[in-house]
Amino acid sequence: MSNKLPFARHEFIDRLTRMKHEMTRRGFDVAVLMDPSNIYYLTGYAGLSAYVPQGLIVDVEQEEPIFVTRMMDVKCAYHTAFMRPENVVGYPEDMIANEKGDGTDFLLDFMRGRSLLRRRIALEKGAYQLTLSAWDKFCNAGAAHPIGDCTRLVTWLRLIKSPAEIVYMRQAGEIADSAIMAAVEAIRPGVRQCDVGAAILAAQARGLPGFGGDHAIQPNIGIGPKTDSPHLTWTDEPYQLGQATTLELGGSRFRYVSGVSRTIQLGKPPRELVDLHEVTVAGMQAAVEAARPGRVCGDVWDAFDAVIKPSRFEKTSRLGYSIGIDWLEWTASLQSGNRTELVPNMTFHMICGMWEQEGWGYVLSETFLVGDSGVESLSRSPRQLFVIA
Amino acid sequence: MSNKLPFARHEFIDRLTRMKHEMTRRGFDVAVLMDPSNIYYLTGYAGLSAYVPQGLIVDVEQEEPIFVTRMMDVKCAYHTAFMRPENVVGYPEDMIANEKGDGTDFLLDFMRGRSLLRRRIALEKGAYQLTLSAWDKFCNAGAAHPIGDCTRLVTWLRLIKSPAEIVYMRQAGEIADSAIMAAVEAIRPGVRQCDVGAAILAAQARGLPGFGGDHAIQPNIGIGPKTDSPHLTWTDEPYQLGQATTLELGGSRFRYVSGVSRTIQLGKPPRELVDLHEVTVAGMQAAVEAARPGRVCGDVWDAFDAVIKPSRFEKTSRLGYSIGIDWLEWTASLQSGNRTELVPNMTFHMICGMWEQEGWGYVLSETFLVGDSGVESLSRSPRQLFVIA
Repeated sequence: MSNKLPFARHEFIDRLTRMKHEMTRRGFDVAVLMDPSNIYYLTGYAGLSAYVPQGLIVDVEQEEPIFVTRMMDVKCAYHTAFMRPENVVGYPEDMIANEKGDGTDFLLDFMRGRSLLRRRIALEKGAYQLTLSAWDKFCNAGAAHPIGDCTRLVTWLRLIKSPAEIVYMRQAGEIADSAIMAAVEAIRPGVRQCDVGAAILAAQARGLPGFGGDHAIQPNIGIGPKTDSPHLTWTDEPYQLGQATTLELGGSRFRYVSGVSRTIQLGKPPRELVDLHEVTVAGMQAAVEAARPGRVCGDVWDAFDAVIKPSRFEKTSRLGYSIGIDWLEWTASLQSGNRTELVPNMTFHMICGMWEQEGWGYVLSETFLVGDSGVESLSRSPRQLFVIA
Repeated sequence: MSNKLPFARHEFIDRLTRMKHEMTRRGFDVAVLMDPSNIYYLTGYAGLSAYVPQGLIVDVEQEEPIFVTRMMDVKCAYHTAFMRPENVVGYPEDMIANEKGDGTDFLLDFMRGRSLLRRRIALEKGAYQLTLSAWDKFCNAGAAHPIGDCTRLVTWLRLIKSPAEIVYMRQAGEIADSAIMAAVEAIRPGVRQCDVGAAILAAQARGLPGFGGDHAIQPNIGIGPKTDSPHLTWTDEPYQLGQATTLELGGSRFRYVSGVSRTIQLGKPPRELVDLHEVTVAGMQAAVEAARPGRVCGDVWDAFDAVIKPSRFEKTSRLGYSIGIDWLEWTASLQSGNRTELVPNMTFHMICGMWEQEGWGYVLSETFLVGDSGVESLSRSPRQLFVIA
């Protein structure tokens, strides 16, 4: 074993303790988690294996959870999860691509053998990894109680970051900045879009001299007319003078992600792009000033909207969301009417994506840490429209 | 619109025609697809937006399908999908992170408005993107018939590749080779693992001078003792003399992926690693010779197993699977007893991952195209244990 955990054992135990309190409050004895970000949060397990059945069994009466996974991934858990090896259980390889039984059947047999089916069980019903088939198997396994729903129970626990998590979020912000600068340096007329992509990905992985990036997250890149679209990527066409690039990317450190977005113009920017940049920067500044403990997420949206609405531009999509492990957390949302209160040590990706026009667009984003009296950006990239002459 | 499709319109229409024949055969009028690889196959839609509800409505009576997606992603579809703009429909942004209604509700309202709920509807019940909540909404929408299951209906159509797809698979193979060579060139004592990762990712994106890589796929990398694990990644620790690296990566061209794996040894390899390399190469060669049209997937496994079993090594995991868009296809499987027949223009990732030992391991893989009389590797990387002196 070459176990070098990103967090001390006591931090994992603390996370589990908070989870078990919440389970008890909701009347659950045993939760079986399938969301890989939640499994990572609670254990450190970092195998990229969620494309086959696996489950983390959290029992309120046991200190350590038990991870049930495909046999070949048991050693991924030995290397990355904090539990003792006896709490990692593998199912046989012949249960892969086998119509007669899969890892979920093994998981249920294991739970039956430990008498866990007599307890009050909950699953994350909203998790993409919980297939209909797995849900049906749980419901028909002869459990003593109906299967409960613990969707986002753990996700909400992730909302407020620990000091150790904040260290990684800050490092992720530095990595993201370096990737933005790599793009600014690479974009030139005649350079292929994919070569700019290569420079970005390399910067994301390389990180800084003192710490590396651990994970590649596909950036969202719009080039030329595709700057009106938020979720596209590069082609191998060469850059042309006059093209703009909208670039949203994440730096990642031990899977903690800070997002940063900037718009880069090759050649003289059109007046309307400069105007949109200026009003968006002003909107972000207003939103940042509105973001402080005690305010709610909807207040941040309102402050941005108050700047944009009187302009000739508009934004209908939300202004951001809580961010952390593997990017987006489905909890706090910077959105009209959202009542989630801002609390110190939350982290938000505030994404001012201006995609309402047809054929052109603009994006500006940063990741913010909520402090005691306001928010602090985890990015030091200048808040400018980068113009490459 | 900057529509530059990876395939001609008639190829998408042909794929849809084959799908509709199969739908009719199974008694379905309307299929609503959520698997993003299947949506890409049928339409070219390339937005990275499957983390929110979306669905492709294929009606056996209509030439073009209708794509329902989040409003901000409508333009992603204009830029990348082959359909006319009127066949792309966006739902409002306030249905994101909204407890009262989400994109699935909009999708069902849209189908109701088009009288599609009176038809015989099928969903991909096995798709990760189909949440329990979405399934329940479909079942309770007042459809005239019970909701059917078309899981992997499209995935099976993807099994045999067209000439245009094979062009991309070959290019993907070249990209994968270049990324393997980038790793071999980068691994040196004292170099940080993440800097090797950066070199690999850059090669994946850059591709070749004549065509670029379009997409970053996280490689699986085991280093030192982690070579016993298939699904881990790098850290920022420096390489040490004596360490081995197992590297599984994909080149990707218009999302068509060819996988290649090699093992790289820094310094003199231990005798047992050389032995395992030699027996694995022999096993792969036997498997390649067994793979020809008319044989079945299980024969390929048997040929490999016949070489490995008499050795002191073992392999319990399967030998590979059909590969194409976004890597793994859940159809043909190179596995003991599998009866899927090999047919020309199938493509397989044959992965000889030898992870049975504790603390060390070995991997060798290539992507093969089934031809008229045998198989052809899409990789030109030498089938060797790379030793860096």
